Amino acid sequence: MITCAIEQVPHPSLPPLAMPRAGTGRRTLAVGVIGPGRVGSALLEQLRAAQPRLARDHALELKLCGVVASKRMWLDCDDAELNGRHGGAQIWRPNDLDAFAAHVHGNDDRHALLVDCSASDAVATHYPRWLAAGLHVVTPNKLAGSGPLERWQAIRAACTGGARFRYEATVCAGLPVVQTLRDLLDTGDELLGIEGMFSGTLAWLCNRHDGSQPFSALLREAHALGYTEPDPREDLSGLDVARKLVILAREAGWPLSLEQVAVESLVPPALAALPPDEFMRRLDELDPPLAAKLATARAEGGVLRHVARLDRHGRASVRLAVLPATHAFAHSRLTDNVVQFTTRRYCDNPLQVQGPGAGPEVTAAGVFADLLRIAESLGVQA
Amino acid sequence: MITCAIEQVPHPSLPPLAMPRAGTGRRTLAVGVIGPGRVGSALLEQLRAAQPRLARDHALELKLCGVVASKRMWLDCDDAELNGRHGGAQIWRPNDLDAFAAHVHGNDDRHALLVDCSASDAVATHYPRWLAAGLHVVTPNKLAGSGPLERWQAIRAACTGGARFRYEATVCAGLPVVQTLRDLLDTGDELLGIEGMFSGTLAWLCNRHDGSQPFSALLREAHALGYTEPDPREDLSGLDVARKLVILAREAGWPLSLEQVAVESLVPPALAALPPDEFMRRLDELDPPLAAKLATARAEGGVLRHVARLDRHGRASVRLAVLPATHAFAHSRLTDNVVQFTTRRYCDNPLQVQGPGAGPEVTAAGVFADLLRIAESLGVQA
Ligand SMILES: NC(=O)c1ccc[n+]([C@@H]2O[C@H](COP(=O)([O-])OP(=O)(O)OC[C@H]3O[C@@H](n4cnc5c(N)ncnc54)[C@H](OP(=O)(O)O)[C@@H]3O)[C@@H](O)[C@H]2O)c1
Ligand SMILES: NC(=O)c1ccc[n+]([C@@H]2O[C@H](COP(=O)([O-])OP(=O)(O)OC[C@H]3O[C@@H](n4cnc5c(N)ncnc54)[C@H](OP(=O)(O)O)[C@@H]3O)[C@@H](O)[C@H]2O)c1
Repeated sequence: MITCAIEQVPHPSLPPLAMPRAGTGRRTLAVGVIGPGRVGSALLEQLRAAQPRLARDHALELKLCGVVASKRMWLDCDDAELNGRHGGAQIWRPNDLDAFAAHVHGNDDRHALLVDCSASDAVATHYPRWLAAGLHVVTPNKLAGSGPLERWQAIRAACTGGARFRYEATVCAGLPVVQTLRDLLDTGDELLGIEGMFSGTLAWLCNRHDGSQPFSALLREAHALGYTEPDPREDLSGLDVARKLVILAREAGWPLSLEQVAVESLVPPALAALPPDEFMRRLDELDPPLAAKLATARAEGGVLRHVARLDRHGRASVRLAVLPATHAFAHSRLTDNVVQFTTRRYCDNPLQVQGPGAGPEVTAAGVFADLLRIAESLGVQA
Repeated sequence: MITCAIEQVPHPSLPPLAMPRAGTGRRTLAVGVIGPGRVGSALLEQLRAAQPRLARDHALELKLCGVVASKRMWLDCDDAELNGRHGGAQIWRPNDLDAFAAHVHGNDDRHALLVDCSASDAVATHYPRWLAAGLHVVTPNKLAGSGPLERWQAIRAACTGGARFRYEATVCAGLPVVQTLRDLLDTGDELLGIEGMFSGTLAWLCNRHDGSQPFSALLREAHALGYTEPDPREDLSGLDVARKLVILAREAGWPLSLEQVAVESLVPPALAALPPDEFMRRLDELDPPLAAKLATARAEGGVLRHVARLDRHGRASVRLAVLPATHAFAHSRLTDNVVQFTTRRYCDNPLQVQGPGAGPEVTAAGVFADLLRIAESLGVQA
C-alpha cells in the first residue's frame, strides 16, 4: 500500500561473514503453488531468488513442479515433454486440483508441499485429503483456520500421518504471531488473553479519525489510495479481523467458531446489502454514529481503536473500543497491526508483536518462512 | 522481578480442542543441562512438567541424562547404578565437562543436546568440539555469540556436520527476536538497521527519570528491589546490551565485534574501578551528568532512552539517546525490552517485538523453544 522509499539496498561496510549453516545431507522438496495472484506471484519470485542460496546454505533443493490458477494450470512435466515442439514456451492446461496435487506429490516418496495462495474455500476443502496423502500444506488463506470447526479438526487429524499444515501468514502476514503463540504453549505457558489490531486499514482510519474530517471522507481517501478492499465493507464489517482471532484461539486449543465472535460491524444495516457503488454514494450515513463514538472516547480522555479481544473465558469480540491514552494501541504507527499475548508468564506486561500486517511481499515471506520450517524438519534423503 | 498477580490460571469456558499434532515416529532426545542456576532450574522444571505432553502430542521423549554445576555434576547412570545401595538418593560427583558431554552423547547414535545455562566463558570454549562431535547446543549464555569472532566462526563451522547451535534467549530472553531476524533473512529480506532497548533495568530507570528525583535515588530503589545486578555497574556500563547487538549483527552476517560497538557507559571513569560498596556510597556522582542529559532532552521536546543501534553501514552504538516524544520507545511499558528491525520489506514501519526481556521463567522458555525446534528437525528413529 505504501511504497518503499529505499530503492538501493546499501551494503554494510563490514564484509559479510562466512556462514556455514548446512547439515550433512541434501534434501529436495517438490513445491506446487495454488493461486498465482498478488501473494502467489510475490512468493514465486521470492522462491526463485532464494533457490541458489538455499541450495548452498541449507542443502535444500526447492523444485517448483506446478502452478494452478482459478481456470488453468501449468505442470513442469508438460514443459519437459513439449519443450522441443513448442520452443520452450510454458504450456497451460485447464485447472484440475486433483491432477495438480497428484503431479506435485509424484510417484516416488519424495517430500512434497502445496502452497495455497488463493482465498478459495473450495481449495481449503482439499486440505484434509492432501495432508492424509502426505502432502504438506502452507497457506495465507484464512478460510480453513476460521471455517467450520469440523473441517479444521479433520485437517488436524490428517496431520497425524506426519504431513504438516502451517498458516503463519493468515494472521498479520509476515509478523511472527502464530509461531510465537505456538512456542509459548509448547513450552508450557498458558494463554490468558489476546488483544490485537488486525486490520491495517481500520488502524489507519482510527488513527486519522480525529474529528477534523468526517469518517466518510477518510474512508473515501483510503479507498482512493487502495488501502481498502475494492468494496470497503469487507474491511468495515470486521469479519476478516474476527477470522484472525478465531485462528489464534484455535491455535491455543479453544474451539472458537466465527459465529461465536461478537463482531460489531461499522456498516449500518441499511447499507449492508446495497450494490457497491450505491454504498459508496451513501458513505456519509456512517458519519453520525462514528462521530458519536469519537465524542464518547474524547469525553473519557481516551482514543478509539478497532480491537479484537479474546478473554480468559474464551469470549471473543471485535469492535471499536475506547482505550486509555496510555494504552500501547493508542501510539501505534498508522497502518500497523499489533498483537498482545497475555499469558501466565507474560502477565504484567504482555508479549507484543507489531508492524505492517499486509502486503504481497511480507505475506509471501510469512508463507516462505513456514515452508522453510517444514523443510528443516524433513529427513535427509539418501 | 515483578511478581505475577494471577495465581489461579482460569480455564476457558470452552472445552479444549483435541489437537493431534504428532507425526508417525517417536524420537528420543538425550539432554544435559549445564548450570542449574536461576534459568537452569526454571528450565529443568519446565522440561519435567512438559514431558508427558511432549510424549503425547509430539511423540518426543526427552531424557534428562545429567546436570552439571560449577563444582559438581549428576549423571543419571550413577543413580541407576547406585540406586539400590543409596535408597534412590541423587549422587553427585566432581564437575568434569568432558565426561559430562561424553555421557550425554552416549555410545549409540542417539540424538543428544547440551543446554548451557551458565554465564561461563570456559563452557562456551567447548561448543565447537561438542558440535563437531554431533551434540546440539542451546544456550542463553551471551559469551559465545558476542565473544571472539574466531570462536564464533569455529562454532558455525562445527555446525556443518549437522549439529545445531541455537541461542534465541541470549537476546531479550523469551521474546522471538533471533528467529524473527533469521526468518527475514532466510526468506530473502535484507537488514537495513536495528534499534532496540535491550535492558529492562535501564528502561525502568529512563522511564522513571523525570527530574522529580535524582537518578541515584532511582538507582538505589531499583537496586533494593532487585531490578539491577548486585553490582549495578554491570547494567550501567552498557556492555550486556552491546553483547546483544553483536549477536544480532552476526546473525545478519555482519562480522561485528564487541570492541567495535561505541558503548557510552553511564558510569563515570572515577567510579569504574571502585569496590562495589564504595561505588554504592558515591552514586550521587552520577546525578549531574544525567540531569544535564535530561535537560537537553527536555529542551528538544524529547525523551531520554537507553538505545542500541546498528545502522546500514554496520556502525553499532549503545547510549542514552534523545528520542522524539512520538517515537515508539517513548511509550514503552516500564521494564519492557523492545527491538525494531528495519529491512528492505519493512522499511516504512519496522517490525517490532516488545515485552519483558528477562527473568528465569521466560528465559528458560526461550531456551526450551530452541530445544523443541531442534527436536522437530530430528529424524525419526527406527
Ligand atoms: N494480500 C495480502 O496482503 C494478504 C495478507 C494476508 C493474507 N492474504 C491472503 O492471501 C491469499 C491471497 O491473497 P492475494 O491478495 O494474493 O489474492 P489475489 O491476488 O486475488 O489472488 C488469488 C489467486 O487465487 C487464485 N484462485 C482462486 N480460486 C482458485 C481455485 N479454485 N484454484 C486455484 N486458484 C484459485 C486466483 O486465480 P486467477 O488468477 O485465475 O484469478 C488468483 O491467482 C488470500 O487468502 C488472502 O486472504 C493476503
Ligand atoms: N536471568 C535472566 O533473566 C537471564 C536472561 C537472559 C539470559 N540469561 C543468561 O542465562 C545464563 C544463566 O543465568 P542465571 O541468571 O541462571 O545465572 P545463575 O543463577 O548465576 O546460574 C549460573 C549457573 O551456572 C553454573 N556454572 C558456572 N560456571 C560453570 C561451569 N564452569 N560449569 C558448569 N556450570 C557452571 C553455576 O553453578 P553453581 O550453581 O555451582 O554456582 C550456576 O548453576 C547466563 O548466561 C545469563 O546471562 C539470563
